[in-house]
Amino acid sequence: MKAIVNVYLKQGVLDPQGKAVHHALGSLGFNGVNDVRIGKQIVLDVDSSVTSDIIKEMCETLLANTVIEDYNFKLKP
Amino acid sequence: MKAIVNVYLKQGVLDPQGKAVHHALGSLGFNGVNDVRIGKQIVLDVDSSVTSDIIKEMCETLLANTVIEDYNFKLKP
Repeated sequence: MKAIVNVYLKQGVLDPQGKAVHHALGSLGFNGVNDVRIGKQIVLDVDSSVTSDIIKEMCETLLANTVIEDYNFKLKP
Repeated sequence: MKAIVNVYLKQGVLDPQGKAVHHALGSLGFNGVNDVRIGKQIVLDVDSSVTSDIIKEMCETLLANTVIEDYNFKLKP
């Protein structure tokens, strides 16, 4: 089973990496980009015994810093 | 319009960040995790003039290092 966890900075938290990419895209001539935000995608290969409650606990304790980050996840069989 | 780009290491490319998280999950008592891979999720806020061909070009030239990384993306209205 795969658990796909997306971790991203909360709205309002400054994202310097995203800003840098945004600027670089402009320099390369890509127009029409208004904003860039960069987060993490964590793909866990887990046993079928791992429930979404356990994944949630993993996110809260290790995978996301909930002070500045939000997360969502989905479990795929 | 939002373009959501996922960039992840190709299979076979060592992922030390993923290995560290895998190990840390084990130390915290989370069992049943077989593998962890960590990639990037880049969320671009783009004008409606930006087509998927343009997003593809952004990925090839800047967002992904295609020597060691694969990517996929979807455009959401």
